[in-house]
Amino acid sequence: MFEATLSEASLLKKIVDSIRELVTDANLDCSDAGINMQAMDSSHVSLCALSLRNDGFDHFRCDRNLSLGVNLANLSKILKCAGNTDLVTLKSEDDADTLGVKFESAKQDRISEFELKLIALDAEHLGIPDTNYKAQIRMPSTDFQRIIRDLQVIGDTCTISATKEGVRFSVEGDLGAGNIAVKQNPNAEKEEEKVEVHIEEPVSLTFALRYLNFFTKATPLGPIVALSMSPDVPIVVEYPIDTTGFVRFYLAPKIDEDEE
Amino acid sequence: MFEATLSEASLLKKIVDSIRELVTDANLDCSDAGINMQAMDSSHVSLCALSLRNDGFDHFRCDRNLSLGVNLANLSKILKCAGNTDLVTLKSEDDADTLGVKFESAKQDRISEFELKLIALDAEHLGIPDTNYKAQIRMPSTDFQRIIRDLQVIGDTCTISATKEGVRFSVEGDLGAGNIAVKQNPNAEKEEEKVEVHIEEPVSLTFALRYLNFFTKATPLGPIVALSMSPDVPIVVEYPIDTTGFVRFYLAPKIDEDEE
Amino acid sequence: MFEATLSEASLLKKIVDSIRELVTDANLDCSDAGINMQAMDSSHVSLCALSLRNDGFDHFRCDRNLSLGVNLANLSKILKCAGNTDLVTLKSEDDADTLGVKFESAKQDRISEFELKLIALDAEHLGIPDTNYKAQIRMPSTDFQRIIRDLQVIGDTCTISATKEGVRFSVEGDLGAGNIAVKQNPNAEKEEEKVEVHIEEPVSLTFALRYLNFFTKATPLGPIVALSMSPDVPIVVEYPIDTTGFVRFYLAPKIDEDEE
Repeated sequence: MFEATLSEASLLKKIVDSIRELVTDANLDCSDAGINMQAMDSSHVSLCALSLRNDGFDHFRCDRNLSLGVNLANLSKILKCAGNTDLVTLKSEDDADTLGVKFESAKQDRISEFELKLIALDAEHLGIPDTNYKAQIRMPSTDFQRIIRDLQVIGDTCTISATKEGVRFSVEGDLGAGNIAVKQNPNAEKEEEKVEVHIEEPVSLTFALRYLNFFTKATPLGPIVALSMSPDVPIVVEYPIDTTGFVRFYLAPKIDEDEE
Repeated sequence: MFEATLSEASLLKKIVDSIRELVTDANLDCSDAGINMQAMDSSHVSLCALSLRNDGFDHFRCDRNLSLGVNLANLSKILKCAGNTDLVTLKSEDDADTLGVKFESAKQDRISEFELKLIALDAEHLGIPDTNYKAQIRMPSTDFQRIIRDLQVIGDTCTISATKEGVRFSVEGDLGAGNIAVKQNPNAEKEEEKVEVHIEEPVSLTFALRYLNFFTKATPLGPIVALSMSPDVPIVVEYPIDTTGFVRFYLAPKIDEDEE
Repeated sequence: MFEATLSEASLLKKIVDSIRELVTDANLDCSDAGINMQAMDSSHVSLCALSLRNDGFDHFRCDRNLSLGVNLANLSKILKCAGNTDLVTLKSEDDADTLGVKFESAKQDRISEFELKLIALDAEHLGIPDTNYKAQIRMPSTDFQRIIRDLQVIGDTCTISATKEGVRFSVEGDLGAGNIAVKQNPNAEKEEEKVEVHIEEPVSLTFALRYLNFFTKATPLGPIVALSMSPDVPIVVEYPIDTTGFVRFYLAPKIDEDEE
């Protein structure tokens, strides 16, 4: 059997909310190491990967590997029934056709139990090659969210350029053009306000703002976002989840047709 | 003539807002005892009853019984023009074809006067039989609202089961099934956090969540909701209004077709 | 060249937001005295005039008169990319076909530069005759906004009547009629709570609420609105902008058909 308890239902809500607009259905791959999930978005443009280590849970038990196919919109509906500070337990017997979701209020005066029907999904675990990224950026997740949201009003694609000075986000559209330059500030007072850029060589890649905007739904997961870029390979947009794991998004850059 | 003054327009706003999505038109029956209203919802499924005693008003005068037919959406539009702390006065001459609504700000520097056209409605006062309910539940109105709202996302009907231990709300839907169990806590610190269940015998009835959800529009009226249930008769969902009266909703249970 | 810097981008946002629902495109007329704009709304019913004096800017330079045709919706999209406390600079070379908009964060760690395409617009500067208004009203802008919004729910037109006692806003609609009377209170404690009416003779004029409601989008510009009325001429609804200038709206009164 599989049984995993988190002390705050709000974390599980945020995780599911961070990917449910992008991914419809996905397998939760449970092993004694933790829970992993990997899925393409419904248009097969971007890839989303979730990893939650066993030691991030208050209680974790997984007797044998299970692959639980869930509809994320339905799981989200159930999670909406939890109070933010409820204890949440996920539970599934081997060969069960439902995932049990239990919420317990701190005072134990309210206990909710749901059974989510599981669905059969093809297991398509894509190997993501190890890459030595040429440019790595770490910045406040809310700043990244704001920039993407602002630029999306002006155009459809955004060029992200990383240099030793910092990161530049550029956009063009019918109304004109613009760019937002964020400088490195490794000496910022608060850890979560730091902008840090590690560069082997300058990298400049262009992406669909629509997908970058989807990724920023993960902003509530934490104060930091990490961007990793190399020429001609997908960008990795990673949201670390405290001590528990991460949500990562992969998106291939647009090919500049003039260069072909 | 009829004249009734309440010290806070916000209370009258909340009362009208609690029923205006359910009831389109209704007669305000005014007598020297106070104001009463009774109306079926527009689909004739549930019944709504309002009672405001004369001593709940700052000033109350009703020389002879009047039945004032009002469109609640229009009355609500007028009430939106009041400041929350305005003094509000309802006024109607005998045989008038309008209801006067007057708002006075605390400093008397802003006075608004409206005349709402009255409408002719059949007076259908339904006798509600006195019932000795087998199960009576008293719980925080916001908890009840939250539970109904959450369960409505999962299914269309909800079974409410009252036992000595507490109340259980169960739901079934395409995505699976669930239930929320709320335990008695008669020793809660705050009066408004208490959950109390008085049981002569356990009762379990099933209702349309759509209507229960309409009823919870009355939640702003106060911290408490009281549910009264007996087998095969309509549930009463009552929202007490402080010292002034109450709004009550009646809804017949669904008949389980398997039992017939 | 033209270059003008304001210390708070939020002010420029509020100015553009105050008129962009009414006016689609407009010429910013820049001279060494400041920036002026005048435009009819897209239905040619009301007139909007903006004036920003050079000394209201942190830095202002305009070597020769320029008329910059901008689409206000697009300018607003760019301004949304500014932080509220960013320094904002507008810049245009002589004969340029774009308006440069630059935002600098207080710490200079984020710099955004946009180029808004200019558009060619007929310059139609309407002469507004000097009028000695018979009734001048000064009142809290939020009160005016609230009254217009409330009355719009009830009817389409509003009669504004100014007398020595104060101002009365009246409305009629299908549901009935109403009026809101606001009294003078020249001794109010706070300057921004004062209602003052200067009357040479009582004036009563009727206006389309739809347009008055558009004008109240300028409410965030400041705590005060000034209404100027004389029989048979357009009302002036003025929102002063601190020490910098003003936004003014002009709207012709409705002619009472019975009087013709």
